[in-house]
Amino acid sequence: MDLEDWRERIDTVDLKLLELLNERTRYSLEIGKIKERRHLPIYVPEREQQIYERMERLNQGPLSDKAVRRLFERIIDESRRIEKEMAEKNRNA
Amino acid sequence: MDLEDWRERIDTVDLKLLELLNERTRYSLEIGKIKERRHLPIYVPEREQQIYERMERLNQGPLSDKAVRRLFERIIDESRRIEKEMAEKNRNA
Repeated sequence: MDLEDWRERIDTVDLKLLELLNERTRYSLEIGKIKERRHLPIYVPEREQQIYERMERLNQGPLSDKAVRRLFERIIDESRRIEKEMAEKNRNA
Repeated sequence: MDLEDWRERIDTVDLKLLELLNERTRYSLEIGKIKERRHLPIYVPEREQQIYERMERLNQGPLSDKAVRRLFERIIDESRRIEKEMAEKNRNA
């Protein structure tokens, strides 16, 4: 296989990643709605910690555990950000 | 559905994300090997730009295009990092 073939494979994976990241975000928004209704905080450090630990435990590489953690930190950061944006919109509505 | 049900769905998505991120990394490492053999640079800004633009074009939300870009910046940063680590290991071997 040549460079272009591997890049095509990456493009296919990236599209799946994009869809899953958006799917995850839809679920985060549902969680955000429930938290809002119940006046629960958006940031739940124990839950985030649990996600990191689970991902490191299930990681089979080649990504290092540290890389997996950095990636999920970004993913969770974006979830938190969009939950906050939704909460602010609802407050101002 | 309650909080815990949505969290279970997120856990399922996260496992798929983890597997895809590792799959993507395996392809990046194959690309790294080809680049090394041909003395090509690891950092190819046009290719990275092409990925960002494609992801923004294909993004259907709820993630914003900016969020998608930040997420793929992290993903690509980890690819570049592991390609570099591999290249250094081979130089020292």
